[in-house]
Amino acid sequence: MALIVPVLLAGGTGTRLWPMSRQGFPKQFAPLFGSQTLFQTTACRFATPDFADPMVMTASDFRFIVSEQLEQAGITPSDIVIEPDGRNTAAPVLAACLIALRREPEALLLVTPTDQLIPDPQGLSMAVERGIDAAMDGQIVTFGVVPDRAESGYGYLQPEGVGVGPIPVTRFIEKPDGQRAREFFDSGNFLWNSGILLCKAKAMIAAFSSHAPEILSPVQAACDGAKRDLGFLRLAHGPWSGVKAEAVDKAILEKAENLSVVKFDHEWSDMGDWDAVWRKAVADGSVQDGVIADENATAIDCKNVLIRSDNEDLQLVGIGLQDIVAVATPDAVLVSDRKRAQEVRLAINTLKKKGKKQATAFPRDHRPWGWFETLAQADRFQVKRIVVHPGAAMSLQSHLHRSEHWIVVSGTARVTLEESTFLVNENQSIFIPLGARHRLENPGKVPMTLIEVQTGIYLGEDDITRYDDVYSRASEA
Amino acid sequence: MALIVPVLLAGGTGTRLWPMSRQGFPKQFAPLFGSQTLFQTTACRFATPDFADPMVMTASDFRFIVSEQLEQAGITPSDIVIEPDGRNTAAPVLAACLIALRREPEALLLVTPTDQLIPDPQGLSMAVERGIDAAMDGQIVTFGVVPDRAESGYGYLQPEGVGVGPIPVTRFIEKPDGQRAREFFDSGNFLWNSGILLCKAKAMIAAFSSHAPEILSPVQAACDGAKRDLGFLRLAHGPWSGVKAEAVDKAILEKAENLSVVKFDHEWSDMGDWDAVWRKAVADGSVQDGVIADENATAIDCKNVLIRSDNEDLQLVGIGLQDIVAVATPDAVLVSDRKRAQEVRLAINTLKKKGKKQATAFPRDHRPWGWFETLAQADRFQVKRIVVHPGAAMSLQSHLHRSEHWIVVSGTARVTLEESTFLVNENQSIFIPLGARHRLENPGKVPMTLIEVQTGIYLGEDDITRYDDVYSRASEA
Repeated sequence: MALIVPVLLAGGTGTRLWPMSRQGFPKQFAPLFGSQTLFQTTACRFATPDFADPMVMTASDFRFIVSEQLEQAGITPSDIVIEPDGRNTAAPVLAACLIALRREPEALLLVTPTDQLIPDPQGLSMAVERGIDAAMDGQIVTFGVVPDRAESGYGYLQPEGVGVGPIPVTRFIEKPDGQRAREFFDSGNFLWNSGILLCKAKAMIAAFSSHAPEILSPVQAACDGAKRDLGFLRLAHGPWSGVKAEAVDKAILEKAENLSVVKFDHEWSDMGDWDAVWRKAVADGSVQDGVIADENATAIDCKNVLIRSDNEDLQLVGIGLQDIVAVATPDAVLVSDRKRAQEVRLAINTLKKKGKKQATAFPRDHRPWGWFETLAQADRFQVKRIVVHPGAAMSLQSHLHRSEHWIVVSGTARVTLEESTFLVNENQSIFIPLGARHRLENPGKVPMTLIEVQTGIYLGEDDITRYDDVYSRASEA
Repeated sequence: MALIVPVLLAGGTGTRLWPMSRQGFPKQFAPLFGSQTLFQTTACRFATPDFADPMVMTASDFRFIVSEQLEQAGITPSDIVIEPDGRNTAAPVLAACLIALRREPEALLLVTPTDQLIPDPQGLSMAVERGIDAAMDGQIVTFGVVPDRAESGYGYLQPEGVGVGPIPVTRFIEKPDGQRAREFFDSGNFLWNSGILLCKAKAMIAAFSSHAPEILSPVQAACDGAKRDLGFLRLAHGPWSGVKAEAVDKAILEKAENLSVVKFDHEWSDMGDWDAVWRKAVADGSVQDGVIADENATAIDCKNVLIRSDNEDLQLVGIGLQDIVAVATPDAVLVSDRKRAQEVRLAINTLKKKGKKQATAFPRDHRPWGWFETLAQADRFQVKRIVVHPGAAMSLQSHLHRSEHWIVVSGTARVTLEESTFLVNENQSIFIPLGARHRLENPGKVPMTLIEVQTGIYLGEDDITRYDDVYSRASEA
């Protein structure tokens, strides 16, 4: 039997954990729980001899984050597939099946979200193993979590009988309203859909052919027209843009007749909002007064609260609070009634209307060569911290409205300035005059950090003329 | 009749409005409400022909802030008197009387805290005028605010009768417990002590002589030994350190027989905690749902809350909150039950124990020549923004463990480096090698801003050798 191919769905722009997760850098890539990100934890979960190298489905904006985080975790992907636009989950699941099928007609896929917390990977492995035969027989195998409350944000699976399964599924209802969720929960006959799927590529393609042919044909075309781009596989934009944005749950699971479920009776959380994070944290019952406070937070006489700050230079203090989540980042703070944490989307919309960058972006801007952040911004100057990965290089560029002072504070830079090239070492500086062609590289073995002081009348990121870029970003800012 | 001398008590380290007010830069000096600080508003209140130039009593740490803020407000003080240590209010009130008496034996003083909000200065002027004759006759005239609740944090005055006064005071009770405060409020026979006093210097000195002779004698000695220091009058440290720290309310007002009160029936707030700030803001009744949110704050379905951020780069969002205050600054955030906002002192103590600088200090560090703030701090480098006032100069100094890159981004600097002096203009930079003697000045007419990038193994403020300092700070870091 061929190895199972893990398909990691990493194109989502989860904003329900704002301000720590934002459209520009969603929660699966943030080290929210421990040193690894949820994306890395998910990838590592399937880095065992039973699985092939993973295929990652992601957005163009996240491609370098994905490759960087996989490299950090020591994982080589079979492919990093770029979805030209967000089209929910049906299209990327289908695209993964079409790509896998080309390599192996009997390919078996394990499709998984990458923003879930599953503390017991062993339990998941056993559940997957239990589903293999059914999947090989053409079933679409889901994994059903035993509900512990009437949650209306999940899909509900009704198995034909009891037992660990796989058991055929009688009904699948995606996100029922509050009353139905209550009925389902009270009946004891339903399981939550975990979002993890095990199936043969051709079984899933057949399901699309039956239940969502309007999705199948443009996705097929987008895969046929896919192009290699610096090691990424970029689906064809033209046909993809005509694909209906729909969840695989709605497009396929609610309709498929060959749906089975394996019961997954272990801890599972989709980390869907801050309340879910709090519930997960207090789950083991050892937490006093239900207070979850990290090292940068101080709770005085609080009860059932989550208070956290991701930065030691930002101290968060809670006094006399009850059922509150308070989450602080250097540029945005959320304080919410714990049970209304889902409404954070309203706040994001309001911030968008106000034109606040915090709605979607983080201060730290990730680029293929490393990252930068603004330390100070004023009328006619701006100070940035720039970190360049070993071996990486910025584009050869020039600016019309600003000059730049660079001071290397760690590592060694190679600077091209017009026709000359210099090595700039720690504690040395160089001046880039307005209009001069320049390029910054890190030829060394350790990250290079420099402080950039820009001066000029206009300091926008879009004042850039690119002459040459190893990352093929001619059209990007 | 001689003019009334306003005595501005500005040595307090009010921390109940933490994190916007901290020991290192207390609320009276912060522009909490509008563009002027409470200290400036107070000083301006008495900048009329009826009053002499004010005498300011303050701490050594605040002396340059006081002189800067008075200059900004266009006010020339008769004296800025430095209290060598914090000794509550009795000692500085007495010192002010002793200093004033030397100049004018019949001196009449109006002693006032500088952290109160009094929206109607006209009303206060009229009340003061009403008290003058009694004060000239030797009374200590207080100003009594009509209570609107049973507040236990204030002093309570019981007048002998009704009317606007001045009326002799039968009893003065400082900070009664909750039950007594309730009785006083319910009786309708009490007024709150506003903390403002009108009296002749010699009447107050006589009261100390009768009721607090143990304070009189060391304060007398501290005044006798006072020295001029760059235009400040610095009380003698030796005798002052032996003075008992006590409030003038306890030391004198609770005991004095010559106490009168003028009723002050106008809006008054001591801004004693965030709840007081909220109450003040909703007082006019036009505020919807009791939501006070500033431009950097977004409130979604909140009720009776105060949410504010002092920085446009730090967005604060509240969702579904009730009776909460949330106050965000770039390095500290407070979220508190509104009615327990006074307990912020517990939080400050906890932060002190954790060794967090936020307990007492702000990121922006004020110095006689201007201010600086750290933009980024890492293992072997630090980035600062430094602003030097026109005409100001740092000391001639050197460092043992760091070199410095200076980039002027606004204004013009004069830099002394060993034996040479350079003008460094906007968009120019200069390198200060480790060990080199250097001095930074702003010879210009506008503030000069520079970005300093320090590199070295030790970057503490105390790695400084001063050779010459126009601000006489040989012993300070």
